[in-house]
Amino acid sequence: MSDDPRAAGNRDAHTGPPAGLRRRQLLGGAAIGAGILGAGAGGFGLAARRDGTAEPPPEDAYGTATVPFHGKHQAGILTTGQAHATLLALDLRPGTGRDDLRRMMRLLSQDAARLTQGEVPLADSEPELALVPARLTVTFGFGPGLVDTAGQAPPSWLAALPGFGVDRLDPAYCDGDLLIEVAADDPVTVAHAVRMLLKDARAFTGIRWTQSGFRRARGTEPGGTTMRNLFGQIDGTVNPAPGSEDFDQLVWCREGWLADGTSLVIRRIHMDLEGWDRLDRPGREQSVGRTLGNGAPLTGGNEHDEPDFEALNAQGFTVIPPFAHIRRARSENPRERIVRRSYNYDDPPPAGQISDSGMIFMSCQADVDRQFVPIQRRLDELDLLNQWTTPVGSAVFAVPPGCGADGYIGETLLE
Amino acid sequence: MSDDPRAAGNRDAHTGPPAGLRRRQLLGGAAIGAGILGAGAGGFGLAARRDGTAEPPPEDAYGTATVPFHGKHQAGILTTGQAHATLLALDLRPGTGRDDLRRMMRLLSQDAARLTQGEVPLADSEPELALVPARLTVTFGFGPGLVDTAGQAPPSWLAALPGFGVDRLDPAYCDGDLLIEVAADDPVTVAHAVRMLLKDARAFTGIRWTQSGFRRARGTEPGGTTMRNLFGQIDGTVNPAPGSEDFDQLVWCREGWLADGTSLVIRRIHMDLEGWDRLDRPGREQSVGRTLGNGAPLTGGNEHDEPDFEALNAQGFTVIPPFAHIRRARSENPRERIVRRSYNYDDPPPAGQISDSGMIFMSCQADVDRQFVPIQRRLDELDLLNQWTTPVGSAVFAVPPGCGADGYIGETLLE
Ligand code: HEM
Ligand code: HEM
Repeated sequence: MSDDPRAAGNRDAHTGPPAGLRRRQLLGGAAIGAGILGAGAGGFGLAARRDGTAEPPPEDAYGTATVPFHGKHQAGILTTGQAHATLLALDLRPGTGRDDLRRMMRLLSQDAARLTQGEVPLADSEPELALVPARLTVTFGFGPGLVDTAGQAPPSWLAALPGFGVDRLDPAYCDGDLLIEVAADDPVTVAHAVRMLLKDARAFTGIRWTQSGFRRARGTEPGGTTMRNLFGQIDGTVNPAPGSEDFDQLVWCREGWLADGTSLVIRRIHMDLEGWDRLDRPGREQSVGRTLGNGAPLTGGNEHDEPDFEALNAQGFTVIPPFAHIRRARSENPRERIVRRSYNYDDPPPAGQISDSGMIFMSCQADVDRQFVPIQRRLDELDLLNQWTTPVGSAVFAVPPGCGADGYIGETLLE
Repeated sequence: MSDDPRAAGNRDAHTGPPAGLRRRQLLGGAAIGAGILGAGAGGFGLAARRDGTAEPPPEDAYGTATVPFHGKHQAGILTTGQAHATLLALDLRPGTGRDDLRRMMRLLSQDAARLTQGEVPLADSEPELALVPARLTVTFGFGPGLVDTAGQAPPSWLAALPGFGVDRLDPAYCDGDLLIEVAADDPVTVAHAVRMLLKDARAFTGIRWTQSGFRRARGTEPGGTTMRNLFGQIDGTVNPAPGSEDFDQLVWCREGWLADGTSLVIRRIHMDLEGWDRLDRPGREQSVGRTLGNGAPLTGGNEHDEPDFEALNAQGFTVIPPFAHIRRARSENPRERIVRRSYNYDDPPPAGQISDSGMIFMSCQADVDRQFVPIQRRLDELDLLNQWTTPVGSAVFAVPPGCGADGYIGETLLE
């Protein structure tokens, strides 16, 4: 057995609060103590009118909305995906020590706390650009090098992933000591925050790689819509939902400095849109096991219907083929699940090509080796989608827990 | 004399239609015959409630909004700037002739017409991605090579600009035979439309360069707000507004195949954010002649106040310094004006740097040599902003007029 798809569907649902509540109050009130907007609390919930229809937000509502920075867990892990994300992987400069790490993480945490709340960081030279938080979140992850510099042994899963047959990795998109994920519903907000944070970090680090991704703009689709990737697939349907029974076990680490933290796997996966275009629609649907129209399993009618992996067609073959991505990605073992959180990328094409597109695949899990690796191994063995997808980048980070208003991200490792 | 700043301000104003009108009806009704959403018609006007406050759009309003494709002028010239734009500069393949151009432009116009209306192009293999137009516009421009291939002499201004002292041009961002500008409020929409259009064009062209830019997301700031660039400056205050007295003369060509068309200058201008950061706030404000807080001229209190270029300070110097960008950019000759329409860019930084940011400067004018060049010449001679800005790309295109539902863009050149 795997996820309860209803729970997964609930994750992005707009559960309306009582009529008349203003959105800004709502955001404050609904933020589950821990600095997270998620699940039933309605990451971007709309107030419900008395007649039951959603009350639309004021025109600048996307700009003023904030996600708390402080809390038990870091923001940006469970936050309903924003429209834009930039990932920065930094490498520590030679000679950077534990004290430097502490200084740097204090500075970064301070500025992230301000920026995410629409407040101006102390050294901001374009303060006006800081005034539109647009659900900005800043999430930090530590690579093995940083943990080592801090004088601790990294957890066993905090290392480069084992190699997979499908990999065609470009070192320019792999690994890193410090990850900063900056996400918001506004691209100017992301650009400005990235710049401010890089200023804080530059005395101690250099850039290893950056990647930028996007989804549908906030407000272009009704709330609760699962995103589509650039293959046109509905992507993210079956995903453990905050609040579901075993969610906490799946996501949060429980021991040592990582307690209440998690791990983040980042895979840059090139998608061959030209090749995909040459495949007919039934072929595309079979490669995943779901329809392109509404993302329903080939054995069902609606996106969140439970797939029937045993159902046979007239010829006696399973309706969801053996090579279908969703069959291969699902484990018998309910502990082998991950929380996916991906972005599209679309960069200027290299000479002679008409696209350089794909997915910045991201997943959170309490233990990379026990949860992510078995899935990726199965997909590596067999998954028709592999014909049109190629992992070109790979990185694993430990995401430390959140912090209180007096603390900083990484304090459990660095104090 | 120059622009009437009130008219300029009006350009993005939200002139409310009668209460109760639904936005979608509104968009249809307000589109000024010619396929353009502009000016007083309220490119993205909100319905007004009886109490005078704006009625916010339904949550998916940004997604379903459309801009007409057919009309006297091409869409995307006067359309209130969308959040995302990708520019594609294509070169004709050797051997491409006039008949091929006609075939290609028919195909492109057909698909652009459908995509912009949220309809699925015939050969679209990800039809679901086409259903969120989000004010998509597709605008075509012709370089000298294409006009030549069509058997016509290009207008005298349709050529590489004269060299300027400030230029550090990278050929990788210069010139091109065919420009396709794709802009929308949603980045997935832009990515999909770009891909569809490149499929149409690829039999006849190869990519010369692409550039992607952004502004604040739709819905993050109140309507009518002038955009800020990555220096934090309010950018676009003084800009001839559709409907103002001499606007048509400034923008539209009047003769031959370009009648009701215009010209587009595209300058990729790198902005040295690190250097800019080292300058204090008064220095930054003097370099432009306007405040950073609200964009008011240094001699006024509000963004749209008319600058007083003669006003002196206590020391007897002009309050707006001789080297200020707005003084240098403004001509005594009211015919020497351009319509600016710029986007921010923020690309992954090259090794060792923390940003690669700037502006994709775009301007429309009836005659490049008579309107754009004199301004750029003056700025080249003296403009303090030059210290932090460097043109690295440059291209000029002729933007043919719009077409009717049975026609195609370029028919006046190619029939
Ligand atoms: C570009 C590469 C990929 C594409 C286009 C893709 C696409 C999809 C799609 C369309 C679905 C079905 C809808 C949904 O439940 O989200 C899906 C499900 C899933 N994918 Fe992927 N995916 C990719 C890579 C991966 C990778 C690398 C992993 C993990 C190693 C993965 C793990 C999963 C899981 C666990 C599910 C849910 C399966 C279930 O129903 O239990 N995917 N993917
Ligand atoms: C990165 C480079 C540039 C930056 C950061 C910049 C910034 C600005 C700013 C902040 C203003 C004042 C607000 C406004 O009216 O929009 C302005 C005005 C203006 N700029 Fe620029 N600009 C740049 C390049 C250019 C170029 C290349 C041209 C044309 C060759 C140009 C032409 C103008 C004009 C005509 C005005 C209005 C002047 C008036 O008040 O009459 N700018 N610019």
